[in-house]
Amino acid sequence: MVRNISVESLKQKTTIEREVELVERKGIGHPDSVSDGIAEAVSRSLSKYYLKEYGKILHHNTDQVEVVGGQSAPKFKGGLVLEPTYILLSGRATTKVGNDRIPFKSIATKATKEFLKQEFKHLDFDADVMIDCRIGHGSVDLIDIYDTTKLRSNDTSFGVGFAPFSDTENLVLSTEKLLNSKDFKSRMPAIGYDIKVMGFRQKDVINLTIAAAYVDKFVKDADEYFAIKEELKEMVKKHSNEITDKEVNVFINTADEEDGKKVGEYLTVTGLSMENGDDGSVGRGNRVTGIITPYRPMSMEAAAGKNPVTHVGKLYNVMSNLIAQDIVKEEGGDITEVMVRIVSQIGRRIDDPHVASVQVIYADGVDPSKHKNNITAIADNRLDHISDLTKMFVEGKISVF
Amino acid sequence: MVRNISVESLKQKTTIEREVELVERKGIGHPDSVSDGIAEAVSRSLSKYYLKEYGKILHHNTDQVEVVGGQSAPKFKGGLVLEPTYILLSGRATTKVGNDRIPFKSIATKATKEFLKQEFKHLDFDADVMIDCRIGHGSVDLIDIYDTTKLRSNDTSFGVGFAPFSDTENLVLSTEKLLNSKDFKSRMPAIGYDIKVMGFRQKDVINLTIAAAYVDKFVKDADEYFAIKEELKEMVKKHSNEITDKEVNVFINTADEEDGKKVGEYLTVTGLSMENGDDGSVGRGNRVTGIITPYRPMSMEAAAGKNPVTHVGKLYNVMSNLIAQDIVKEEGGDITEVMVRIVSQIGRRIDDPHVASVQVIYADGVDPSKHKNNITAIADNRLDHISDLTKMFVEGKISVF
Amino acid sequence: MVRNISVESLKQKTTIEREVELVERKGIGHPDSVSDGIAEAVSRSLSKYYLKEYGKILHHNTDQVEVVGGQSAPKFKGGLVLEPTYILLSGRATTKVGNDRIPFKSIATKATKEFLKQEFKHLDFDADVMIDCRIGHGSVDLIDIYDTTKLRSNDTSFGVGFAPFSDTENLVLSTEKLLNSKDFKSRMPAIGYDIKVMGFRQKDVINLTIAAAYVDKFVKDADEYFAIKEELKEMVKKHSNEITDKEVNVFINTADEEDGKKVGEYLTVTGLSMENGDDGSVGRGNRVTGIITPYRPMSMEAAAGKNPVTHVGKLYNVMSNLIAQDIVKEEGGDITEVMVRIVSQIGRRIDDPHVASVQVIYADGVDPSKHKNNITAIADNRLDHISDLTKMFVEGKISVF
Amino acid sequence: MVRNISVESLKQKTTIEREVELVERKGIGHPDSVSDGIAEAVSRSLSKYYLKEYGKILHHNTDQVEVVGGQSAPKFKGGLVLEPTYILLSGRATTKVGNDRIPFKSIATKATKEFLKQEFKHLDFDADVMIDCRIGHGSVDLIDIYDTTKLRSNDTSFGVGFAPFSDTENLVLSTEKLLNSKDFKSRMPAIGYDIKVMGFRQKDVINLTIAAAYVDKFVKDADEYFAIKEELKEMVKKHSNEITDKEVNVFINTADEEDGKKVGEYLTVTGLSMENGDDGSVGRGNRVTGIITPYRPMSMEAAAGKNPVTHVGKLYNVMSNLIAQDIVKEEGGDITEVMVRIVSQIGRRIDDPHVASVQVIYADGVDPSKHKNNITAIADNRLDHISDLTKMFVEGKISVF
Repeated sequence: MVRNISVESLKQKTTIEREVELVERKGIGHPDSVSDGIAEAVSRSLSKYYLKEYGKILHHNTDQVEVVGGQSAPKFKGGLVLEPTYILLSGRATTKVGNDRIPFKSIATKATKEFLKQEFKHLDFDADVMIDCRIGHGSVDLIDIYDTTKLRSNDTSFGVGFAPFSDTENLVLSTEKLLNSKDFKSRMPAIGYDIKVMGFRQKDVINLTIAAAYVDKFVKDADEYFAIKEELKEMVKKHSNEITDKEVNVFINTADEEDGKKVGEYLTVTGLSMENGDDGSVGRGNRVTGIITPYRPMSMEAAAGKNPVTHVGKLYNVMSNLIAQDIVKEEGGDITEVMVRIVSQIGRRIDDPHVASVQVIYADGVDPSKHKNNITAIADNRLDHISDLTKMFVEGKISVF
Repeated sequence: MVRNISVESLKQKTTIEREVELVERKGIGHPDSVSDGIAEAVSRSLSKYYLKEYGKILHHNTDQVEVVGGQSAPKFKGGLVLEPTYILLSGRATTKVGNDRIPFKSIATKATKEFLKQEFKHLDFDADVMIDCRIGHGSVDLIDIYDTTKLRSNDTSFGVGFAPFSDTENLVLSTEKLLNSKDFKSRMPAIGYDIKVMGFRQKDVINLTIAAAYVDKFVKDADEYFAIKEELKEMVKKHSNEITDKEVNVFINTADEEDGKKVGEYLTVTGLSMENGDDGSVGRGNRVTGIITPYRPMSMEAAAGKNPVTHVGKLYNVMSNLIAQDIVKEEGGDITEVMVRIVSQIGRRIDDPHVASVQVIYADGVDPSKHKNNITAIADNRLDHISDLTKMFVEGKISVF
Repeated sequence: MVRNISVESLKQKTTIEREVELVERKGIGHPDSVSDGIAEAVSRSLSKYYLKEYGKILHHNTDQVEVVGGQSAPKFKGGLVLEPTYILLSGRATTKVGNDRIPFKSIATKATKEFLKQEFKHLDFDADVMIDCRIGHGSVDLIDIYDTTKLRSNDTSFGVGFAPFSDTENLVLSTEKLLNSKDFKSRMPAIGYDIKVMGFRQKDVINLTIAAAYVDKFVKDADEYFAIKEELKEMVKKHSNEITDKEVNVFINTADEEDGKKVGEYLTVTGLSMENGDDGSVGRGNRVTGIITPYRPMSMEAAAGKNPVTHVGKLYNVMSNLIAQDIVKEEGGDITEVMVRIVSQIGRRIDDPHVASVQVIYADGVDPSKHKNNITAIADNRLDHISDLTKMFVEGKISVF
Repeated sequence: MVRNISVESLKQKTTIEREVELVERKGIGHPDSVSDGIAEAVSRSLSKYYLKEYGKILHHNTDQVEVVGGQSAPKFKGGLVLEPTYILLSGRATTKVGNDRIPFKSIATKATKEFLKQEFKHLDFDADVMIDCRIGHGSVDLIDIYDTTKLRSNDTSFGVGFAPFSDTENLVLSTEKLLNSKDFKSRMPAIGYDIKVMGFRQKDVINLTIAAAYVDKFVKDADEYFAIKEELKEMVKKHSNEITDKEVNVFINTADEEDGKKVGEYLTVTGLSMENGDDGSVGRGNRVTGIITPYRPMSMEAAAGKNPVTHVGKLYNVMSNLIAQDIVKEEGGDITEVMVRIVSQIGRRIDDPHVASVQVIYADGVDPSKHKNNITAIADNRLDHISDLTKMFVEGKISVF
């Protein structure tokens, strides 16, 4: 197969050479990430069921989850959840195979609860969450075209990726990972799951702004609250020094203080802001890179919950990043930045995209013509093995948010 | 006030000089756009009520709408909607002012119906749509910080914009506008509201792929269906010639044909794919530019439904585009492309962003230093008048999707 | 066919000879009656669709409707509905016939709206009501046994009826009918639809207590409110004199006054108490007689929404009353009271009940043996023609609440 | 206080002397009973919370629960739940006390889950049930009138009761209690919770018809199914002999066999028919006696979930039965049947009803005038202590369904 792979040399500043850079990560407990996590968990569970019962993954896209925030009254030493968070599952699935009815709603509901239980240990599942499932069966036209053995694209869509990560990107992503790690939670249980990290670099200074929900029962008063905040700030600064040589200013829960006065606390009962009015939905948060990068090319595609076999919005976004990373890795110092876009066309085989477009920024003095063939080969090779991604999605080995 | 306005000169190819470009528009009837449209209509109605009763717009963010597709059985000459589309409104609003209880749910429900009635005339409102409203009152912390007279930013967020539009962008946007215009609908009633346009430019050739739902009752058989398709193709080609000199290939409803054979039709009862299993939600479709542009900087922010007074995710995205457009307009041929990002910080006045970053690609031979002051002044002036946007949002004069 | 018809002579006081009697009617606008009305409207619409498309009424029981009250702020001259009433339709229906999918949810939603529109003219359908439909397909076992051509009973159940109505019963029923008549509404528009009438007779005195929601926009102040109340009282008294010779005391909206002082008003925006927190559901209000009669035999069966072909809970309750009425009519003055119960057995033909039990109170000196044969014949004849009821239900000629 | 207590002597056959009698019990797992059980559990939990926090039980009526059946595919040795049962909680509660917000939705949701967990051990709470809560705050008028310290009636309503139970009534009630006892479940785990018992007595023969859902995982094939059925039949017959001297015919799951052939099985996965399309709601099943008795006086009032302080629909129904039982007990053999009705008037003290009407059937030759004073005293005494009921409801010592 001869694929339409375009390799273009860009003469421009790389992201890290530019004056301003902005990077955001919505942590695992942010309502948008909760939605993504549920959508992907439901897709994984359905996929496993289909594989077990029918030997292949049947059509589904469970990329529609709406988290409607509850109401709570947090207070030092422990407050109350007043109204449960309402979680609506929608999307579609294959609900019948011959005469077999698939327990799709039960699978979806169970996957949701298991995801929440695994990630957020302060939730009381009998009182804090209500789950509703309106997953339906799919559009007639699309189901007809969808035959997983042919592996044709389900849509005219595209994926984008880039490499390498800048310091700001690495810092934002790793900071949230650190703060939501099991190890960190056991050391500093007062810091909850809803952690939003924003990195804003202007020239060589990175401002790292963190909004972190506290778990109220682990904080006895305002003094302890602000003491923990100081401690957290030091930990983040220390972590920053391991990631970057740039100057990093750390700001935590900036709404707590106004003009130098302490004016409030960011407390929650469960460590999740969705307990108190914060809503979320799939596809509005992190990209498949784990971060939001408005200074980088991005796809609007909601990857979480999409079927991992033929949905190019899921496959091509991940694939683009993998190709970009391969190129940077293999071509070493000659290449300073790579952007990859892969465009599908509905009905076309997924391993044969309409175009795979690679844009490369070379280091000074490098001759692009020396790299073009190898770059093409890298993209070609990855596309040859695109089906490998499916298994990795099902096993949860690739994160999409 | 001295604002932090950064003006940076970029030495790089403009978008239109690059080899590949990808642009998408989800038409007004796409489930994601329906969600956006409802969210914005609800925000407008609430804003008007608050203004009328209390003289100012009170806190609300109704940027959470989930459209859960129904079921239908379209057929030539007219089929049936089997199960209504379910629409969930969420988000939050100010629900009580002193002792006054605000009819927020009634306002939201009514705004939703009125929006749908105005835009989609084939919907039977007694049978085809079910609306539920779970809009709640807001998070305690955020409501406290939110005081519309101080006009402080409600979040650490950012907006991005660019100018000018490329031919591909103009073509994609204007094609959908044309096909969903009142005039066009009266001439070709068989073409419904759910129209997705994707423009993919490779060098000087633009492939324009259109998915357009037909309204079944206006089509008597497959022959008429494909005849309309040909006619539509010609109209789009003619339109393309008015927009661009580039070669434009038009593809319509590509799933209808496979290997040259006619294999199906894209029929709907109401002109909306949500009638049959297609879900949508706010913020997953078009950016405030009206299009999705993965080769351009984009914000993930869902602007539709956000409060138009202090939500920087809404204000700064629109503002960035306006500044970019002003710059291109005023500085004429000297500037070939502008990108603008505006970054807020929670608690900071909205007219005094953390940074307004302007990146400019100049025409060959232009001296950037001659333009820097004027660019700064343009941005400064727009930010001085940021409050003007609010009124325009409420009156529906700025589209955000 | 020889039916098991038992005719028993009871030697006891008739209802009207007893010291105390209690009768209640929940008017058409009471939330329980609204639920009943919707359930029956949905069943009628489905029945008509099945008949039109398939020549017979297919399985359904839509006897589950939950009305969850909204929120309102009524005030003199007109107030506001704050939160819509939420109406949940459930039950089950035949949703697929061969390859035809039945538009059951669209039919149900439409029937609900049409019922509400026809009955309650002050509802704003864009803002005051939200409808959700969770009607499903039925239990496997029951659908299997259900074959409308065999007309076998779907359940072990029973129906009860009696005749004649007492003065108290006639008075309670006719008073509500009067107050909710079109004619009355045009004369006294301030009286809404939610009217509850309770008749309590102790010896020869009937206390008639009426709770009637006012429509706020037709009342300018408290003076007018209480003036209307006086006028209404006079009208009801006048009506009472036409119905009975007994002494009738009329009490209206007793919560308005306490110890002779005026302490409040029963105002609504729409004439319906469901607008402000009053919930309702099917089967909790009036029996098929239109009234609730705790001094009479009653069935707990919710008739509204049940399928009109084989559901004995619906058929036998109506049939029992018809037989009782026939007997009283035909046997004239010899019989002072009749009670009828019909018991089904699951799987048994509906025209051949397990038993039809008739209990008769004869006038003094009457010889029961003279009537037994004729009474048996009357019951026999009605059961012979039980299928006639079906058509009458579908055409709305028999009220069941 | 001089109460209006009417004692009337009836000259008529007692229930047990009549030819036909019909009695039904919907077991604890019937969808209507599940609804009742949840409603009452929610009321108990709210009452306890109010008592603990505020020293008295605040206004609430949670007597609105709708159980919307799921979908399942039971099979021998264990099948699958396909779609969860959806449970909607509604009604109203006191949601705010001064500035305290009450966690009413969390309490209600938790009470629901705990009730289900305690009663139905085969439910998988992560997959088989979805709970939604739309409990709101109450109607303005009623909350105003409701002040629990005054203990005034909240409504014009009534309660009815009778004594003693007939053999048929005792048999129906005790049979279900037996089959749903812990002891029985451990001996015969294949019999689930949804057990409906109907007793139909014609003269001296009682036909006892039982519909009992099996739990599929405890049954390996049809042979075992029917063997269990035989065993169950024998157990019920043995039990019947302990309760009554009358001839008892036992029928179990009559739909399983047609014309002597085995045509199906009544299997469920969870022991609950709600898993597969059977809906339920509050107040449609058993009366406060635990049974449905169309040959006895009945109230339509849904007692479950009503507030236990002033809701006469709950208090007076239970009170009427207690008075009737006291009278029969104290007056021994002289009295063969008693019926009691208590009528309230809105705004009147609950211990001073509008009327308490006692109807007595005396044994032959008994002089009513000898008993009248004592009967009045019994009723008077019970009404003096009506507040004792409240505590018993809260502690779950009085069953209302």
